[in-house]
Amino acid sequence: MIKVSILGTGNVATHLFKAFSKSNEIEIVQVAGRNKKALLAFGQEEKTTSDFSNLKPSDIYIIALSDNSIQTVSEQIGTNRGLVVHTSGSTSMSQLSGHERHGVFYPLQTFSKEKMVDFNQVPICLEANTKEDLTLLKRLANSVSENVYEIDSKQRKSLHLSAVFVNNFTNHLYHMGAQICKENNVSFDILRPLIQETAEKIETLSPLEAQTGPAKRGDSNTISSHLEQLKNPDYKAVYELLSKSIEKTYGKEL
Amino acid sequence: MIKVSILGTGNVATHLFKAFSKSNEIEIVQVAGRNKKALLAFGQEEKTTSDFSNLKPSDIYIIALSDNSIQTVSEQIGTNRGLVVHTSGSTSMSQLSGHERHGVFYPLQTFSKEKMVDFNQVPICLEANTKEDLTLLKRLANSVSENVYEIDSKQRKSLHLSAVFVNNFTNHLYHMGAQICKENNVSFDILRPLIQETAEKIETLSPLEAQTGPAKRGDSNTISSHLEQLKNPDYKAVYELLSKSIEKTYGKEL
Repeated sequence: MIKVSILGTGNVATHLFKAFSKSNEIEIVQVAGRNKKALLAFGQEEKTTSDFSNLKPSDIYIIALSDNSIQTVSEQIGTNRGLVVHTSGSTSMSQLSGHERHGVFYPLQTFSKEKMVDFNQVPICLEANTKEDLTLLKRLANSVSENVYEIDSKQRKSLHLSAVFVNNFTNHLYHMGAQICKENNVSFDILRPLIQETAEKIETLSPLEAQTGPAKRGDSNTISSHLEQLKNPDYKAVYELLSKSIEKTYGKEL
Repeated sequence: MIKVSILGTGNVATHLFKAFSKSNEIEIVQVAGRNKKALLAFGQEEKTTSDFSNLKPSDIYIIALSDNSIQTVSEQIGTNRGLVVHTSGSTSMSQLSGHERHGVFYPLQTFSKEKMVDFNQVPICLEANTKEDLTLLKRLANSVSENVYEIDSKQRKSLHLSAVFVNNFTNHLYHMGAQICKENNVSFDILRPLIQETAEKIETLSPLEAQTGPAKRGDSNTISSHLEQLKNPDYKAVYELLSKSIEKTYGKEL
């Protein structure tokens, strides 16, 4: 059994807690968080604490907190405490170097409290300052996911940056699409199958191969008509910039 | 039986041909296309023609060609020919008004020849200049899809514009993510589950609710660090513009 304590009560902490709870190889020793109300969701009182400096002995302490809090909480929990890891994509491992044994356990997925996730498919990116601790993290990760990767801090930062493009920005484009529908009294539901297929398509094709549309075809008539339709200057700017970028990628100059 | 002829041999024509072929309520009379080699994929010679002015009698003629060719081909096929429809999202129905009976049969999906599509889920947006022909198009559409909508030309144009945001631009963001991975020797596969989940999430949440990330949180440190990481000025511009748009949407001023 790997004894794990989770520091944090947010989305990542919640999903880790659920995934770890299902595994026979993991014992959750404690969940720590400042928000006492949020702690209630994590079971009995003796298993939770709002005092980071008073944690029970565990093999691994997982700091699942916002990037800004990692350093502070890392200092609060004291040293000689086993392996301390964070779950952040954009924070380098060295932020935890105050602890002799430190590492990273970064689940690359978008978590919301309201939506279940098949944790088994979540890619987990691992890093540790010793081989032994990397092996320990691999055991932990393999017991909840099939997709475990060894990734250094530089690579992880680039993954986090890519994730902003394919997740955050993509979702914002969905929002823009939804707004355009709303303004024209059309149901956004009509676009849902297209959104699913756009994502599914790149399971078998590269995004470079999967590209379609007026900018790819160099269809300047359609582009002009779309720009005319767009009343919101911010949407117009996004349309122009992304169309130009697509044209550049496929060597079309309009 | 509804007798249908398809004009075109591209992606849309191919997927319509496959879907219609499976239905017991539809008889494909003919497939017409200028590209004789492409026509070979559509069966026996007597069922295909490269002469648009010599089509056999059908109930519905579906012009599944690029927007630029619709007008020309519409004129070639002659009048008094039954119901003539096009499949374009951005072309108004009136482009076919040279035909007494005209309409639109717009399947809102991204089609590639290499990738199968569950046509049953494809939303089909219909328009016709008479109630009788709208009913005929509904019969045709319902025999291949569960998602049939009556949509006028203005609404259809807005759907087509939204589709560019949620499909074309989204796919280009996938490409950017893939390039960032490539430059940093990280496998794009690590991002695939995130891409799928991003699309799935909006089946239960609105895009407005589903948004996460540094711009949503107003996390200027992460944004600065990401902009520093991005070497390509085009990628930097996209990152800045979309982050600003997200900040504006959620009322955060950085």
